[in-house]
Amino acid sequence: MSIQAPHNTLLIPGPIEFDDAVLQSMSHYAESHVAPGFVKVFGETITLTRKLFQSTNPAAQPFIISGSGTLGWDLVSANLVERGENALVLNTGYFGDSFGACLETYGANVDHLRAPIGDRPAFDEVEKALQSKPYKVITITHVDTSTGVLNDIKRVAEITRRVSPNTLVVVDGVCSVGSEEIDFDKWDLDAVVTASQKAIGCPPGLSIVMVSGRALEVAKSRKTPAASYYASIEKWLPIMQNYENHKPSYFATPPTQLVHALHTTLSQITARPMSERFAMHTQASDKVKAAVAELGLKQLAPNREAQAHGMTAMYLPEGLTPPDVLPGLLKRGVIFAAGLHKEIATKYIRFGHMGVSISQADRKDIDNALTALKEALAEAKQAKGL
Amino acid sequence: MSIQAPHNTLLIPGPIEFDDAVLQSMSHYAESHVAPGFVKVFGETITLTRKLFQSTNPAAQPFIISGSGTLGWDLVSANLVERGENALVLNTGYFGDSFGACLETYGANVDHLRAPIGDRPAFDEVEKALQSKPYKVITITHVDTSTGVLNDIKRVAEITRRVSPNTLVVVDGVCSVGSEEIDFDKWDLDAVVTASQKAIGCPPGLSIVMVSGRALEVAKSRKTPAASYYASIEKWLPIMQNYENHKPSYFATPPTQLVHALHTTLSQITARPMSERFAMHTQASDKVKAAVAELGLKQLAPNREAQAHGMTAMYLPEGLTPPDVLPGLLKRGVIFAAGLHKEIATKYIRFGHMGVSISQADRKDIDNALTALKEALAEAKQAKGL
Repeated sequence: MSIQAPHNTLLIPGPIEFDDAVLQSMSHYAESHVAPGFVKVFGETITLTRKLFQSTNPAAQPFIISGSGTLGWDLVSANLVERGENALVLNTGYFGDSFGACLETYGANVDHLRAPIGDRPAFDEVEKALQSKPYKVITITHVDTSTGVLNDIKRVAEITRRVSPNTLVVVDGVCSVGSEEIDFDKWDLDAVVTASQKAIGCPPGLSIVMVSGRALEVAKSRKTPAASYYASIEKWLPIMQNYENHKPSYFATPPTQLVHALHTTLSQITARPMSERFAMHTQASDKVKAAVAELGLKQLAPNREAQAHGMTAMYLPEGLTPPDVLPGLLKRGVIFAAGLHKEIATKYIRFGHMGVSISQADRKDIDNALTALKEALAEAKQAKGL
Repeated sequence: MSIQAPHNTLLIPGPIEFDDAVLQSMSHYAESHVAPGFVKVFGETITLTRKLFQSTNPAAQPFIISGSGTLGWDLVSANLVERGENALVLNTGYFGDSFGACLETYGANVDHLRAPIGDRPAFDEVEKALQSKPYKVITITHVDTSTGVLNDIKRVAEITRRVSPNTLVVVDGVCSVGSEEIDFDKWDLDAVVTASQKAIGCPPGLSIVMVSGRALEVAKSRKTPAASYYASIEKWLPIMQNYENHKPSYFATPPTQLVHALHTTLSQITARPMSERFAMHTQASDKVKAAVAELGLKQLAPNREAQAHGMTAMYLPEGLTPPDVLPGLLKRGVIFAAGLHKEIATKYIRFGHMGVSISQADRKDIDNALTALKEALAEAKQAKGL
């Protein structure tokens, strides 16, 4: 029997449904954060994070810090950019705006390369922007949670290395890590910022950042000190290195229970090749998108290559808003999210299909959700006389 | 039967032992952070935090943010002080040094008023320092986890108000909130920074900061923008206000499971008057300190009025170091902490007596620990031929 009380199925683009074992591992009794038992678990969790990113380069370093995904933006902005340096934000919506604001807080001069809603900046525009001035970092939202747009970070990294080799390639992977292919070393990425509660399947409360050796060197050779104390790479680097070598170390108390949960879910995820996981998410996504098309709904991202595999953002039929449809879904035991992109928030809904809802097919979460969506839409149309 | 596996009793100055119900509440199924169920729980948790600080002034605001206690220093340093302003740190050890470093990261000119190990700065010295130049903030470690020294924050706040009325009084209460008396409004404090995992009895991962109306005004009327993005009072204030009014709001995803745990423990703590809780901790502390004296051990803090009530730091007998004694305690099911103050770390051990180990007398944690300490010391002396 599940340890979770009966509940509606959470199919928003994060937080997502939990595996019982992940929740169970948080009931761990109190431990000292520097005692051997916890040190081993934390150390292993850091090593498992390398696997999550398919990274074998020892120069790269995962950081696991108590905080939400947003904290990763501070870690990037306060360590990899200095006051007055340029940052290029490939902006596909809400999260590009916010990452830009974070960079500005720490003194960066930010240029936004904005795409129309549902699209992503064209590669030739990215190339032109990178040629226009020296950028210290380029940031890309891998999957924009607000629109379901998928950016081609591999291609953007290639362009950046060719056109502006010293520009650091920074990926906001909060809504992609664990559901979209990422090959950290091979794609030559410099930082991927993510959080525990999306496709990784852990409760929220952990900021997870993978940083390349090149980026660590940039942080180390700053002319000015890091602009944040809590989000300082210099402070956290020895802590992460020590724990991974199973040596206790202290800068701030790690969230022991959440680290146990992350250890459990990463052990599950990395027990199989990551390629299998990505294929499962792609397969499920194809099914969802076909069903959505069959219902006559358009996606915010019309181009297939720019569609995320862990979520689908779909316009509602003319005349319907999220409050017309979401209660009908809830009545059927399914929770979707309303729109988030402020210009069109009332026109669309978001369906997250990640993690155990995909990897544990016997849950039938996706089939149930698609049936509920069909019924709820019909009901809503009827109620509105559409 | 407990949901916790059999384990040794954790009696360090945080993290501390958990009540089953607190751990259990983290097994909550996945929820949207903006759904009514969670919004209510988070809103209530913010209101319960006011009770924890015995505060009824609506102008004051609790902040509950995903992060460790250290993040609270950033919140203070990046919002209440501007570059080039002065900060006075009453330094009683490790944590004063670190708070000072955090303030300097954000551009403050920091003066440390250092006390000898085991003591606290004298009141007339504090007064003299406050008269010497205009300080934007004065920071005080309420209980120094590294030494067990208790500072008289009520008295320091009185002196500050009299001598330098505009100086903000900032308390590092990580190791005091929940075990030491704090009367936020009456004592006219401006910020108390704490964390979930000490006397509050919740797993680590929540930064909790209580901020006065005066301090919020200072943050609001800054000449320069807040120097942190993730730790920005301007960003978090509307979020906290909205949740407390049971309205969903988004800046960064709150750690839903930990918030449930905090809700449970704060409900337990505030079900009785806080004065009872403080009296229980004082009574237990008196018992511990009497037993320690009977064993011939000296405390790091020799003066009774400067001794914390939630922990005891004690010198070991000449010739013994923590590795001689801690394993003997562990063998008897009890975990104490080694020394932390770098100059004398090998000479002392720390005993944390907070939370359920105090409030649930039937656990007999304190009696068992005192027996174990007596036996482990005798054993260690014998082994060393002392």
